Amino acid sequence: MSDPKARTEHDMLGTAAVPAEAYYGVHTARALVNFPISGETLAARPHLVVALAAVKQAAAAANTEVGALPERIGSAIVAACEEIRAGRLHDQFVVDLVQGGAGTSTNMNANEVIANRALEILGRPRGDYATVHPLDHVNLGQSTNDVYPTAVKLALDAHLGELLAALSVLRAAFEAKAAEFADVLKMGRTQLQDAVPMTLGQEFGAFAVTLGEDELRLSEVRLLLHELNLGGTAIGTGLNARPGYREAALARLRDITGIGTLVSATDLVEATQDVGVFVQLSGVLKRTAVKVSKICNDLRLLSSGPQAGFGEIALPARQAGSSIMPGKVNPVIPEVVNQIAFDIIGNDVTVTLAAEGGQLQLNPFEPVIARVLSAGMGHLAAGLRVLAEQCVAGIEARREHLSAIVASSAALVTALSPALGYETACAIAVEAHRDGRPALDLVRERTALTEQQLTALLAPEALTGRERS
Amino acid sequence: MSDPKARTEHDMLGTAAVPAEAYYGVHTARALVNFPISGETLAARPHLVVALAAVKQAAAAANTEVGALPERIGSAIVAACEEIRAGRLHDQFVVDLVQGGAGTSTNMNANEVIANRALEILGRPRGDYATVHPLDHVNLGQSTNDVYPTAVKLALDAHLGELLAALSVLRAAFEAKAAEFADVLKMGRTQLQDAVPMTLGQEFGAFAVTLGEDELRLSEVRLLLHELNLGGTAIGTGLNARPGYREAALARLRDITGIGTLVSATDLVEATQDVGVFVQLSGVLKRTAVKVSKICNDLRLLSSGPQAGFGEIALPARQAGSSIMPGKVNPVIPEVVNQIAFDIIGNDVTVTLAAEGGQLQLNPFEPVIARVLSAGMGHLAAGLRVLAEQCVAGIEARREHLSAIVASSAALVTALSPALGYETACAIAVEAHRDGRPALDLVRERTALTEQQLTALLAPEALTGRERS
Amino acid sequence: MSDPKARTEHDMLGTAAVPAEAYYGVHTARALVNFPISGETLAARPHLVVALAAVKQAAAAANTEVGALPERIGSAIVAACEEIRAGRLHDQFVVDLVQGGAGTSTNMNANEVIANRALEILGRPRGDYATVHPLDHVNLGQSTNDVYPTAVKLALDAHLGELLAALSVLRAAFEAKAAEFADVLKMGRTQLQDAVPMTLGQEFGAFAVTLGEDELRLSEVRLLLHELNLGGTAIGTGLNARPGYREAALARLRDITGIGTLVSATDLVEATQDVGVFVQLSGVLKRTAVKVSKICNDLRLLSSGPQAGFGEIALPARQAGSSIMPGKVNPVIPEVVNQIAFDIIGNDVTVTLAAEGGQLQLNPFEPVIARVLSAGMGHLAAGLRVLAEQCVAGIEARREHLSAIVASSAALVTALSPALGYETACAIAVEAHRDGRPALDLVRERTALTEQQLTALLAPEALTGRERS
Amino acid sequence: MSDPKARTEHDMLGTAAVPAEAYYGVHTARALVNFPISGETLAARPHLVVALAAVKQAAAAANTEVGALPERIGSAIVAACEEIRAGRLHDQFVVDLVQGGAGTSTNMNANEVIANRALEILGRPRGDYATVHPLDHVNLGQSTNDVYPTAVKLALDAHLGELLAALSVLRAAFEAKAAEFADVLKMGRTQLQDAVPMTLGQEFGAFAVTLGEDELRLSEVRLLLHELNLGGTAIGTGLNARPGYREAALARLRDITGIGTLVSATDLVEATQDVGVFVQLSGVLKRTAVKVSKICNDLRLLSSGPQAGFGEIALPARQAGSSIMPGKVNPVIPEVVNQIAFDIIGNDVTVTLAAEGGQLQLNPFEPVIARVLSAGMGHLAAGLRVLAEQCVAGIEARREHLSAIVASSAALVTALSPALGYETACAIAVEAHRDGRPALDLVRERTALTEQQLTALLAPEALTGRERS
Repeated sequence: MSDPKARTEHDMLGTAAVPAEAYYGVHTARALVNFPISGETLAARPHLVVALAAVKQAAAAANTEVGALPERIGSAIVAACEEIRAGRLHDQFVVDLVQGGAGTSTNMNANEVIANRALEILGRPRGDYATVHPLDHVNLGQSTNDVYPTAVKLALDAHLGELLAALSVLRAAFEAKAAEFADVLKMGRTQLQDAVPMTLGQEFGAFAVTLGEDELRLSEVRLLLHELNLGGTAIGTGLNARPGYREAALARLRDITGIGTLVSATDLVEATQDVGVFVQLSGVLKRTAVKVSKICNDLRLLSSGPQAGFGEIALPARQAGSSIMPGKVNPVIPEVVNQIAFDIIGNDVTVTLAAEGGQLQLNPFEPVIARVLSAGMGHLAAGLRVLAEQCVAGIEARREHLSAIVASSAALVTALSPALGYETACAIAVEAHRDGRPALDLVRERTALTEQQLTALLAPEALTGRERS
Repeated sequence: MSDPKARTEHDMLGTAAVPAEAYYGVHTARALVNFPISGETLAARPHLVVALAAVKQAAAAANTEVGALPERIGSAIVAACEEIRAGRLHDQFVVDLVQGGAGTSTNMNANEVIANRALEILGRPRGDYATVHPLDHVNLGQSTNDVYPTAVKLALDAHLGELLAALSVLRAAFEAKAAEFADVLKMGRTQLQDAVPMTLGQEFGAFAVTLGEDELRLSEVRLLLHELNLGGTAIGTGLNARPGYREAALARLRDITGIGTLVSATDLVEATQDVGVFVQLSGVLKRTAVKVSKICNDLRLLSSGPQAGFGEIALPARQAGSSIMPGKVNPVIPEVVNQIAFDIIGNDVTVTLAAEGGQLQLNPFEPVIARVLSAGMGHLAAGLRVLAEQCVAGIEARREHLSAIVASSAALVTALSPALGYETACAIAVEAHRDGRPALDLVRERTALTEQQLTALLAPEALTGRERS
Repeated sequence: MSDPKARTEHDMLGTAAVPAEAYYGVHTARALVNFPISGETLAARPHLVVALAAVKQAAAAANTEVGALPERIGSAIVAACEEIRAGRLHDQFVVDLVQGGAGTSTNMNANEVIANRALEILGRPRGDYATVHPLDHVNLGQSTNDVYPTAVKLALDAHLGELLAALSVLRAAFEAKAAEFADVLKMGRTQLQDAVPMTLGQEFGAFAVTLGEDELRLSEVRLLLHELNLGGTAIGTGLNARPGYREAALARLRDITGIGTLVSATDLVEATQDVGVFVQLSGVLKRTAVKVSKICNDLRLLSSGPQAGFGEIALPARQAGSSIMPGKVNPVIPEVVNQIAFDIIGNDVTVTLAAEGGQLQLNPFEPVIARVLSAGMGHLAAGLRVLAEQCVAGIEARREHLSAIVASSAALVTALSPALGYETACAIAVEAHRDGRPALDLVRERTALTEQQLTALLAPEALTGRERS
Repeated sequence: MSDPKARTEHDMLGTAAVPAEAYYGVHTARALVNFPISGETLAARPHLVVALAAVKQAAAAANTEVGALPERIGSAIVAACEEIRAGRLHDQFVVDLVQGGAGTSTNMNANEVIANRALEILGRPRGDYATVHPLDHVNLGQSTNDVYPTAVKLALDAHLGELLAALSVLRAAFEAKAAEFADVLKMGRTQLQDAVPMTLGQEFGAFAVTLGEDELRLSEVRLLLHELNLGGTAIGTGLNARPGYREAALARLRDITGIGTLVSATDLVEATQDVGVFVQLSGVLKRTAVKVSKICNDLRLLSSGPQAGFGEIALPARQAGSSIMPGKVNPVIPEVVNQIAFDIIGNDVTVTLAAEGGQLQLNPFEPVIARVLSAGMGHLAAGLRVLAEQCVAGIEARREHLSAIVASSAALVTALSPALGYETACAIAVEAHRDGRPALDLVRERTALTEQQLTALLAPEALTGRERS
């Protein structure tokens, strides 16, 4: 108490010193002692800090509206929240992202910072909780159990928006390449074995299409993030929330965030304990990760070599590939995206365990769910932009190599199979491969197909199905 | 050749003996040698066998329609497929479910059984492939790479239908209990600690609601299963499929299956290599598993004891619980459902790896995806029915025990907190717990709340939010 | 009761009809009703059935020894167990492998079959439990909670023995190829890009070495399987087991199984609730799966083509690869092994969830752990043998192709880098690749290296490090 | 070039500006552009930075020893490395932890910082690579592919040492409680149902024992971390490493690190591509996570209530549990440890995917493996210390509650079952539970057991097996 740099606050455990200049208070101070785990704090998730402020602002406005909060206090709280949403005071969100307590410490940190900033706005000293109380005023009509999931959903919605934008950039990059390579004939492969011809444009076009599908799936799950349990308080029964508060708080939240599709869940008891939306989001995010990883695998494979590999495309060189092998260029951008994908896939198991571990009226493990989902979406959005801009945009086709392979391939007999019958075609293919002879030579020797028929059957348009589409 | 019980067939590797009475042929015989892994055969998945027959029937009808197949052969193939769809000849689907080759052996097994049965229908001996050929006729205009995924999707659709029906039964069982327990007041818990009151009906109602949401999610993904790549043949370019075949085959498939929403994917190259639909299905199935497991955890917890546990509900006794502890009754039904859920969650990782491992124009690992998804849905559907009928329907509430706990709980002070302020309420709660005194006694001694106020604040309707809904 | 084909038995729930000819009894009959999940019964795991009989035999012998069981009854039980261990009566183990109850139904099934067979041996009718009782005699001094984990460990030990034998066969197949290919120079690759030369023998030798390491790791975990909690009864306190019984039962079990390293865990309370050994086994099994999958990926990659791929080795053709592409040969054996690996990796998550879900003095989820571990090891052992015998043994090197690539590779400059400096070597490599010129020509033009120096630096022994080893 | 705050460096891609004061160079600068993913840099892993410096120091000393490096340059490099190992210049390790390139950028970052600091020591300006070159001197005889895995193993060894220390602290805390609670009789539970009596000391003792077993398992895998591929250079063939270098470098590394068990792997080609050691480590770490999570689940369950739950123990209050429920205390410490465990379990899947994705002679995904393993071990070590010190040390037993439950439990009949027979005991237990009567009263009424017999059978020593141990 005699320390001029500290003020004393108290809670149910007694008193504790808080740095005098800190906007946070005793509950946050306890959390700092209890969770010295990762060193990564709430401030590392600006979307979450902003979302917390948005929820608190909506609650204060609603409580004022329904007469639960004096106008003067409500206005100060709203003003404090506005500042945080504008990016101020984020350094006061000091609780470790790895935390127990179902988000309580996160909520407490927000309550205390907002209360003390509101006090400052009102010209009162920090800690003067008789004037503005972190719980009785800032947290009025709320519980961690409705505020925290609501803020997490809003934060993940922001991350998801960024991810969708990055996906769109990557999709466009593939679409541009699909157009650029529309006439580049190449050998398609199934099970890594030469199959039938296609164009490189079709190959890159498929990458664009498959990503576009995930934009749809992610947009679907985004709507589920907009179903909120705000107003349910501790377990969804709404205990201690004023009549009218819930509807007003949601309306204010729609205004503040600009997200018009925010709605109240139909059964708040269910909505308070259920984390299904996060499992769904994680599952779809994992699907995107799987697709992106498959694409990166393909890019690495198609660019393998340059001599002792597929060598079909060249990725742009981004850095020296090796500390020992001069001139080596490695697919470092796809590799980093692969790893982001592996992380997301593992995170999905983390989310699953956390979700399965919820008991009765609450899931106390939402903090780890929020942490890995936000990290995963952030990394993926960054990685996809790098992939689009530093890699895909600069990919070049090795056209001569590609057409030479198609011309000499025994796999062309498939196109003649309807005319020759499977067994005759098979015998020719086996012999061509065994003797290293061009299959078409054997076709000409052994079968009745005319050159005209061959030309028609082997026309690129026929082979690649472009005449059929 | 001299063995009267065998016939000789040949393929690109040479000749092989096939049992004379077998409907399958040389390609299947090769697969039996190559995949002696699990002993579980295609016949163990009747939905898949039926789906294969449906696809082959649609293809034969379409090929006849577009003039690619003689009417007489087409009709015989159709007739053979009809029989298989009616349940005949399933024992001829002998390839191991654990197989390489991207489903080729499964497709070959179907082609051969259908060809030989068609031959029989035409009065010809088995193996007379000059008349009806497994590949040139039964597989006409097809590739494993479009037929197999199409059949797998249809089979999973059938499994999903059964799962949805079981989910609905379980949901109804919880709804019935929610109604039965609508007035049973109990203590709600967050983080396993006494929180605020609710009704047992609300608790069971939340189970019903959360399952209902998954019926919606599963129905959404079901529609994705209806997007087919049939007609894309080897890599999606449609090579070797007659003009008009794709549209006709889809139309016939809609007729045969009665699923009117079957459509062609927009980009068949993408659709042939992409297994995103299975990742999506597996992800949602995992979500359902997570929810069901959480519910089973809750049922086991609420029925724990009977003396040294929560003891809030009693599950019906289904069998003696212990070989050593007389009279012990265990929650065996929830336990088996937990384990089904754990299996599904693990399967999701298997599906993920298989999906991520696809390369270029095809994913060769669809067989394991199909196997674990069909097993998981089958087990879950069975487990949920048992859970509904053998467990949930017979659950009883221990009403006296529940109300006694609510009456004496210090947690009631939360309801008084808006009136008293958080800090006063907190001091009373701490003291009540420390001294083992009823919290309400302390409220009466220390605060100005009147009996009338207390009665209003602690009315069950107020506590449980039923007055607010 | 009037049904001549049924007998009536009773348990704590009342009476139930059991087929007259069945060796199992009422507890098993209840389980059949409760667990109609997968259709796969205990009989599908002969190692488990045999292990159960071994434990029961050891217990009966030990109980006789310590005077808890009359000699005549003990002998009959021992005789019944001997028969089961010899393969008889397995069809009476009818409980579904997917079951709740922590293995109780499995134990009950064994108790009942053994009791009724012992009665038969004694000339008594089935169901005459006053003479030989499934619980009071066959289960004497035992609990499911010590008997079941003990049997599961013995069963997994048997599976593990088979897996180790298969691993050894595969390792030997790779060793043989390593010797065969010892002089085949090829380009090594890192990150799929041409790196520095090596021999194909080194590549295959690494496969052998890496598998050999897993034989060691699996052998380590095998010893952990030999720590048993037999004698701990319900929760590890040994309640109801006679003094001397535990030591005697273990001694008999060592005799019966021939596994001399079976020992008692030091803390039976811990040993009864802990499933760490299964987590460890699953983790190591997963490691083996990862390695085997990586090897299969490499085999598929090295054999990709034959024209439009790496084309370095040829896998033996095992079956026609495609229903549409004549003459196509696919890597079906590696593909099936990949899928077995994916399944095992997913199973590891299942085991993890089941292990994490254990509560207090017991883990009720051992049945799913036992099921997936035994399936995984069984499938993998089968797959590895097929891989060794049907694939690896027949692999051929495409020697001309390999040496041609090495000779023309710009990657050779790495070997000259110590002489030239990284930056000079780098400039040459970049120019060689850009202009499509042999790097060595540029070296000769631009640098002072003599032919003698070049010959020494580029000698195969120098390049591949064989002079260093 | 005219920017006084930048210097220009060049690489195979051309030139690039580097901040004048930076110790890192062009390769690092490229990586900053390529990997703007997580914002978390190498500096966040001091163990890795120190390990890199140790490897570089050992290599420089060894190269000097075998005559490959001039004494003066070697000494300057050694001196620079010593400084980094002492904690200096860590802020120069700026590459993102999420990176492609198989660790090349990490190695390049180290090479450049060390070269520039060595130049400074020699009185030369930064960038004077003709004097000390990052690749030709600092990386001499090395490749990222042997240096990076070696450094990662050393870093993980350091993390593992800290984890083992934390595990030991937690084990000791449980041992202390086991002694404190040695005489506290309580009801043991299986499948959450009342089973047979035990002591609370036995329960806590089992926690200590199970953790002790993991100390053994982790120590085993620690030895595997000491098998290094240093000296194998690019693919394990040792190309460009001087004779004698490998042995000398390992000897120096043993000196520098003080880890006498560092050895060379037997097959360096295998060791370069294999990441089995990380899979093994991750698997054992996951096992520890599973056990710790199970223990935390038990602590939360045993302390549930305080009124409407098990209420057997009280965890020390660490912070206010709720923002809405005054006086609520939550198990926040076990909850945070649960979440750390879930993260580690998910990470294991990430490691698995990264390991399975390795191809041919290298696994390019080691950076993500290193990142998640080091994070997981760091978080777990921190969490276990908090658990020991802030939670377990303060746990109190609710002794009266525990003994009251044992005294009234129907589960006591199990102890009488050998005397009464299973069926009689069962009937009594069922009736006692049905009628709410003490089971012992029924025993006295119905059976011939004397009080003396009852006293003996129900003595705490007999019930808990302490007389047997």
